[in-house]
Amino acid sequence: MNMAQFLVDEIKQLLQNHLKIMYVIKFCAILLFIVTQSFTAPYKLSNGCGYDSCNLGKSDKLNVHIVAHTHDDVGWLKTVDQYYYGSRGEIVRRGVQYILDSVVQALVENSDRRFIYVEMAFFWRWWNQQSDDMRNTVKQLVNEGRLEFISGGWSMIDEAATHYNSIIDQHSLGAEFLHDTFGECARPKIGWQIDPFGHSREVASLFAQMGFDGLFFGRADYHDLIIRSTERTREMVWQASSNLDRQSWLFTGILPLYYFGPPPFCFDITCRDPPIMDDKSLHDYNVPERVEIFIGEALAQREIYATNHIIMTMGGDFYNQNAHENFKNLDKLIHYVNLQQENGSDVNVFYSTPSCYLYALNKAEKKWSTKTDDFFPYASTPFVYWTGYYTSRPALKRYERYANNILQVTRQLNGFSQSNLRNIIFDLSEAMGLAQHHDAVSGTSKQHVANDYAQRLSDGIDRAVEVINDAYAKLLSKESRTTSIPHQFLCPYSNISACLPIEGQNQFTLTFWNPTIHPVTIYPRVPVTREYLIRDPIGNLVRAEYLPIPDTMKNIPGRMSSAQNQYLLQASLPALGYNTYYFEAKVDTNKIEHKKVTTTINEACILQNEYLRVEFNDRGDLKHIVNLAKNLIVSFTEQGLYWYTSYAHANSTPLSPASGAYIFQPLFPEPLPVSITRHIHCMKTDIVQKASIIFNEWTSQEFSLYRNTSAIEIEWIVGPIPVDDNIGKEIIIRYNTDIKSEKKYYTDANGRQVLERIRDYRPTWHYVPDDPISSNYYPINSRIWIRDQDRQLTILTDRSQGGGSMHDGSIEIMVHRRLLHDDSMGVDEALNETAYDKGLVVSGKHILFFDRPSNSAQLHRIGAQQLFMYPLATYALPNTSSYTNYSDMFRQSWSALSDAMPLNVHLLTFDQLAPKQYLVRVEHYFELNEDEFYSKSVTIDLQTLFKSIGTINEMTELILTANLPLSELHRLDWITKDQESSHIDMFQQYLSNVTIITLNPMQIRTFQVIIA
Amino acid sequence: MNMAQFLVDEIKQLLQNHLKIMYVIKFCAILLFIVTQSFTAPYKLSNGCGYDSCNLGKSDKLNVHIVAHTHDDVGWLKTVDQYYYGSRGEIVRRGVQYILDSVVQALVENSDRRFIYVEMAFFWRWWNQQSDDMRNTVKQLVNEGRLEFISGGWSMIDEAATHYNSIIDQHSLGAEFLHDTFGECARPKIGWQIDPFGHSREVASLFAQMGFDGLFFGRADYHDLIIRSTERTREMVWQASSNLDRQSWLFTGILPLYYFGPPPFCFDITCRDPPIMDDKSLHDYNVPERVEIFIGEALAQREIYATNHIIMTMGGDFYNQNAHENFKNLDKLIHYVNLQQENGSDVNVFYSTPSCYLYALNKAEKKWSTKTDDFFPYASTPFVYWTGYYTSRPALKRYERYANNILQVTRQLNGFSQSNLRNIIFDLSEAMGLAQHHDAVSGTSKQHVANDYAQRLSDGIDRAVEVINDAYAKLLSKESRTTSIPHQFLCPYSNISACLPIEGQNQFTLTFWNPTIHPVTIYPRVPVTREYLIRDPIGNLVRAEYLPIPDTMKNIPGRMSSAQNQYLLQASLPALGYNTYYFEAKVDTNKIEHKKVTTTINEACILQNEYLRVEFNDRGDLKHIVNLAKNLIVSFTEQGLYWYTSYAHANSTPLSPASGAYIFQPLFPEPLPVSITRHIHCMKTDIVQKASIIFNEWTSQEFSLYRNTSAIEIEWIVGPIPVDDNIGKEIIIRYNTDIKSEKKYYTDANGRQVLERIRDYRPTWHYVPDDPISSNYYPINSRIWIRDQDRQLTILTDRSQGGGSMHDGSIEIMVHRRLLHDDSMGVDEALNETAYDKGLVVSGKHILFFDRPSNSAQLHRIGAQQLFMYPLATYALPNTSSYTNYSDMFRQSWSALSDAMPLNVHLLTFDQLAPKQYLVRVEHYFELNEDEFYSKSVTIDLQTLFKSIGTINEMTELILTANLPLSELHRLDWITKDQESSHIDMFQQYLSNVTIITLNPMQIRTFQVIIA
Repeated sequence: MNMAQFLVDEIKQLLQNHLKIMYVIKFCAILLFIVTQSFTAPYKLSNGCGYDSCNLGKSDKLNVHIVAHTHDDVGWLKTVDQYYYGSRGEIVRRGVQYILDSVVQALVENSDRRFIYVEMAFFWRWWNQQSDDMRNTVKQLVNEGRLEFISGGWSMIDEAATHYNSIIDQHSLGAEFLHDTFGECARPKIGWQIDPFGHSREVASLFAQMGFDGLFFGRADYHDLIIRSTERTREMVWQASSNLDRQSWLFTGILPLYYFGPPPFCFDITCRDPPIMDDKSLHDYNVPERVEIFIGEALAQREIYATNHIIMTMGGDFYNQNAHENFKNLDKLIHYVNLQQENGSDVNVFYSTPSCYLYALNKAEKKWSTKTDDFFPYASTPFVYWTGYYTSRPALKRYERYANNILQVTRQLNGFSQSNLRNIIFDLSEAMGLAQHHDAVSGTSKQHVANDYAQRLSDGIDRAVEVINDAYAKLLSKESRTTSIPHQFLCPYSNISACLPIEGQNQFTLTFWNPTIHPVTIYPRVPVTREYLIRDPIGNLVRAEYLPIPDTMKNIPGRMSSAQNQYLLQASLPALGYNTYYFEAKVDTNKIEHKKVTTTINEACILQNEYLRVEFNDRGDLKHIVNLAKNLIVSFTEQGLYWYTSYAHANSTPLSPASGAYIFQPLFPEPLPVSITRHIHCMKTDIVQKASIIFNEWTSQEFSLYRNTSAIEIEWIVGPIPVDDNIGKEIIIRYNTDIKSEKKYYTDANGRQVLERIRDYRPTWHYVPDDPISSNYYPINSRIWIRDQDRQLTILTDRSQGGGSMHDGSIEIMVHRRLLHDDSMGVDEALNETAYDKGLVVSGKHILFFDRPSNSAQLHRIGAQQLFMYPLATYALPNTSSYTNYSDMFRQSWSALSDAMPLNVHLLTFDQLAPKQYLVRVEHYFELNEDEFYSKSVTIDLQTLFKSIGTINEMTELILTANLPLSELHRLDWITKDQESSHIDMFQQYLSNVTIITLNPMQIRTFQVIIA
Repeated sequence: MNMAQFLVDEIKQLLQNHLKIMYVIKFCAILLFIVTQSFTAPYKLSNGCGYDSCNLGKSDKLNVHIVAHTHDDVGWLKTVDQYYYGSRGEIVRRGVQYILDSVVQALVENSDRRFIYVEMAFFWRWWNQQSDDMRNTVKQLVNEGRLEFISGGWSMIDEAATHYNSIIDQHSLGAEFLHDTFGECARPKIGWQIDPFGHSREVASLFAQMGFDGLFFGRADYHDLIIRSTERTREMVWQASSNLDRQSWLFTGILPLYYFGPPPFCFDITCRDPPIMDDKSLHDYNVPERVEIFIGEALAQREIYATNHIIMTMGGDFYNQNAHENFKNLDKLIHYVNLQQENGSDVNVFYSTPSCYLYALNKAEKKWSTKTDDFFPYASTPFVYWTGYYTSRPALKRYERYANNILQVTRQLNGFSQSNLRNIIFDLSEAMGLAQHHDAVSGTSKQHVANDYAQRLSDGIDRAVEVINDAYAKLLSKESRTTSIPHQFLCPYSNISACLPIEGQNQFTLTFWNPTIHPVTIYPRVPVTREYLIRDPIGNLVRAEYLPIPDTMKNIPGRMSSAQNQYLLQASLPALGYNTYYFEAKVDTNKIEHKKVTTTINEACILQNEYLRVEFNDRGDLKHIVNLAKNLIVSFTEQGLYWYTSYAHANSTPLSPASGAYIFQPLFPEPLPVSITRHIHCMKTDIVQKASIIFNEWTSQEFSLYRNTSAIEIEWIVGPIPVDDNIGKEIIIRYNTDIKSEKKYYTDANGRQVLERIRDYRPTWHYVPDDPISSNYYPINSRIWIRDQDRQLTILTDRSQGGGSMHDGSIEIMVHRRLLHDDSMGVDEALNETAYDKGLVVSGKHILFFDRPSNSAQLHRIGAQQLFMYPLATYALPNTSSYTNYSDMFRQSWSALSDAMPLNVHLLTFDQLAPKQYLVRVEHYFELNEDEFYSKSVTIDLQTLFKSIGTINEMTELILTANLPLSELHRLDWITKDQESSHIDMFQQYLSNVTIITLNPMQIRTFQVIIA
């Protein structure tokens, strides 16, 4: 209610009835309006938001922080909107709209109560539907610290399959909404990853850079937990980066019971625990027994934590749909438990929040243990490894990465064209925020929900294309002719060599936007139904190969195209800019001269360029790769595709699950080859040399060696995975070499810093191996390598996949899964993706590098950055009579940069916030000591990026989520057991006239820039 | 919130800070306090409560009355307190506290919303726990008609197994609470029997006398419903009494879908229907389709109702635990449906209440069909007759009747002793209110809930005994010696001839309170372990029989007593008063002379007294009963105990249920005799002649013929019913005679007016028999008879039982049931009562009269009244040295009456409300034309009842529920299709000086009396 409004209305009514006392009334009205202004609801005023508002308990008691919360998956069993509204009740009857409605009501009812909210995807939906009165009420609750936003991302991210670019984006999206809506009181100070199934060191490092004072999560390896509970080290300082030192330190706590409250104290409508029945005149009065049990629970929990503060997370999945029930009983529980202090009870219980609990720990003057590794893989119980989701739904995982590529390009185009269409890009930003959810890109939702994520990305991309067109309208047009440019469109099926809109066209253009700040050369393929002359941006005819589309591609179910051939061309693109290629149908096809293509079938073959030689025998076995310049050779045995038999279980339980969306549970530790015999087709042209290994009708891999590159591209196609035998299958690609890797392998975290993995080993505790395969799987977000003294074999992936090294010298990467049972972890559906009534076919790429260890970093760092920020191809059908006609009208090449940028710098974000206002993130993307040259600090001038736009007038360095000036960040200090303090001096503030900045290895710096 | 309080607090605070402007502030404070007094919450003011506040819709539209409600069983699957609190979530997660919390909140949020509440047992519990602020809020909602109490009984009564005395009491209990709490705005005007499984004409008649304007219910015979839907006669004027004419007419409507809303429009947390998703920016926007379906539902419903008003009951069992969800969606639905009126839609929908719907029908100027029979038995679908519950839980059914007996006696004792302890009696009143619930006395709750009902009755009786003691302390004591009377106690196990506290005592007293206004003679049995001299109130030795306790009684499991013998005495008691009998142990047991007792075993035997002869053959068959004075004889064949094989079904469904708590579904139409051979023991004494027929180890019946009586008492003992054969059994007693009953039989309704039943026939529609047995069962609340020209065989029951006449001349009464399957009607438990690890043993009485039809009414009317208002025996252990000593100290006989009262008048209620204030109900309990003499109007002087208390000073006639002066009752008038109006002139008001009143047959009159 809005009391002020009410009073005004009442006074008005009074005025009509009592005109004579009008002036007195008027005076009173004004007076009272002023009085009531500060009380839009009859709350007690608290101390406001922030740590100062925290109840820090009693020093001589066990202080129990009750954290009332709800865990709202932004899609899982239902889509985010189905969860929001509470539709599809036949699946599960949960509705977030009601949660937020009732939580706000419950907070208004009693000012002692506190609540936290986490997922901005839901809160934003709700907020959009609220009245001004309700919004004011919520603002007051936030300002008083009674409603606290925790984590505040668009979703609660998955940590295994997410890429750092999108993690930062999605947290920034939520942070921006909160900042704009509520201001600083709503700035999240705590990471809250209570449900994800494994925790990444990189995420912790990013969280520290987001200004978080701590991180809480719920799931950790059962064995780790036992030890930490015994040693009271469930709370620690996570030293989350070997590059960023204290900037990455993050206080981290593992919650007592995932994120649930102690049983039997769940008062949610979904729970069955007894309520507090405190009316002695009714039957079943139960206060004494309930209080006794609670005190017992609290005392027991104290035994595994380090201080006299403990946290009880009173919440669960979609709890508080009727928050009143929870709070009514918690009010009573708190009251009666504290009443026992009169009888000598040691337990002091009160409503709190994670940040207040954290603050109490911080004030406890305790010295904390540290940790430098990560929390992968996650075993919930012996033999139960949550490593399947590293690969689950490979198509969605790729589509998410692809959508991010488009999103970043669109932002750049919007920014450099100064189109100021950020509101249109929002749809894709929102879809990407949802996709980061720990049941989205993780592949652990139900099928219809996965479809919804993909549809949202697709819809978001459609809207982004509007922005792309608007931007290109400005950039393509020469001078003032901005009116009609040919409509730019994507060919989303080009990954299966299909682009229907250009089929049969007389002419079309193909424009590539290079989103990196360095020039790149790519080898795009253009599927066609006729032949073309192709001109580069300066009008030269492009030397392109005209090649048949392989059968493996053409046979993919659902491919609508009638294109039988494709052009393969080499395109060299300017940094942060575009080139347009003009395709003009050849009129006289008789005179066509195709360049010589050598092909062999089932013969031994060698692919070779300036750098590498790749040798296959006549049975299709990869035998050797030779690095010609470095004179290195690596031998392969039985490289290829294999499958694990999925463990199936009629009565799958969490203690003995089938292989499912979450769990990878192979029945036997040895995978079987997908076939005994193979076919090998080799083909050599000027641009590329290819070896296609066809294992059977549903598996193939194609090795491509382009000229002038040190990379071998391996394109795999898997599917439809046959399940006629009623056996679920999990498909891997193995690279078995003679590299003496000695159990060690290296995987990246979230596309960024790399961790060393050791087979059958955990850095933090004495690990007794149980499962030989699944326990050695780790997330491969962008790369994995093995090495010995001289040699390193590195593989880049085009999406997140799971994998590891099961034998010395071997890398295996799981690329696809088709399962027939549910793993009983909740999704209640077998991960059995289909399309066109068959198992889903998935294709993808591995990029393989073979070099000395000391030379490998620059290959994989630069290669990975170019892979996830790939040039975006847009097509158009210009209504032009000739190439000349086109080139007269349109600019065919453009770059935002005139000066070269250092190769170890990446433009992570370029986003126009408002007409003269930009958000920029730049990044040093090499780690310390991994490259002799690039692992050093680097200095750049940000003005370089704005050359095409204007002069930087003002520049403010922000924290990573861009919701606070870095200078205003004051993180809590923690002391480790080694007596080290986490304290760091405030980062230097940048004055508006100093645009030259330095980046240290792995440093990301965020700036708000205002242009003159 | 209480805004006034808030403002005062604020002003106070202001005063402290701004003392200088104190006077101005003070003025403002007073002014605003006055303003806000009328607005304790920011509501729109409505027109207030009552019919005037009703929205009557639009005359040219189909008006859909949305009635938001909840149906809250006061015990069923859980006990009333478990339901109240929402405990025992493992059974079902429902909590009424939350329903009421959230409903009030939802009503406060939006003044358009309306809600009804029905069950006072819950509302009273809730109200007791509320703050003053909340109470004021609720009062306002009631005063504005936004929260309306409907029906307003303590529970929603069962209609088959309830006795009219307790129906009236339990409705009065709720009505009194509402009246005292909220005043006239809360007076229920509508009967709301939405769930009971069959509807009694007597209930309708009582409801009319309670001032109700109408009755709605949900369940009626499927066949009846089809016809009524076709003929649009689901709404009618029920002419509910053949004695009371228009006083009993009640407008009655059968709701469209039990009491649920139309699918798929259930928005309750327990439902899965889609919510209204009206945010076009989110996925799954569904407003158009939802609106279309709703309009379709409304138009379809119009087809089966008579006017352009229809009702949609949006609610269900324990719905609205989070009322916000329901209302939020209903708000939207109403909004969007009405929006379609702009597109020509004919449907106008709005929040309403049953009374407003009724009022709209009343204003519709329609002529309504009538009905004179009742709605028993209830068949939900073909073959599925809800007739089992007429008998289910026979022990609870008897205990409830017994508890009422104690309750009425306690009220009388409290009243005549002027103890003014009504608040203590409340516990028993409350327990009786609960027991009337349609899953309580009906026997259709789970076992643990049935135990809870019994425990509450027992606890209530314990408290009543406190009042009884207080009263006897005044009544027993001679003159001023009121200090210490011997503690009076009950012997609740005297029904199995056990009374432990008196065992072995040297002396004890036995006091009987006769609650009827006529002298009675009874033949009590006193189980003893030694021998006594017994003195009557004037000191004479009583001629008592000393008889062995029969083995059939002694063998009942759980009987703790060591008493082997019992005294049988004749006790003649004064009207509305007591006699005390003094038992003094015989010192010299050698000299004991027992009177002669004749016993025979397995011989033919004849019981005979002045009025009757009862003949058995040597095989234990009842052969004849002869009415000696009237020279009538009736022959019996195969009288005795039989069992039906319960239909069992592994997958019982509502369409094909097993026999269960609700459903009586015999597998074969012919019951089997419980045994082929029997034993007969006969015994004759001066007082009584008995024939015990022992069928087997678990069934017996004992015929007793006392001297000077026209009644034959048949005591049956049944159990433990064997189920070792895995067959459920339903035990009946059959009385097969040669009476030519020609398909007709007669059963009472709720212990009052009698309806004619005809086998395989329904008065209202052409009935095609399906089930030959169950479909002919009717509730026998107190009596059943068959007759021919000259002879009538009447049987009184001591509790509600089911029965009928399956063959001409035959009466059968089901006395016990033990079942092994659930009937799938919701209780989800087989009705398998046990005690001491065996099937429960139940005993009871039938009273048999055999006379001419014209002479039978006075026998069964008087007999039944004496049976349910039986003299209450209390024992005491006086610390007196001798009888003389006792009689010196204590008054041994007392009567409230000095003048005889007419035999056809019953004192239904005598209740002290306050020191000088009484509530009295008197009743003419004969029907028209059933007795030559007693079926006439009768005049009495109420002052007669108050002789012992004082002079009536003021007397106000009230409606039956005592919550409104009769003179202020204005019921709505209805016109029948015969052009008859239901209008009646207001009853005459009684002046304080006119205490002489007239009662017409079956009339009950209620008075509040103030004594000088």
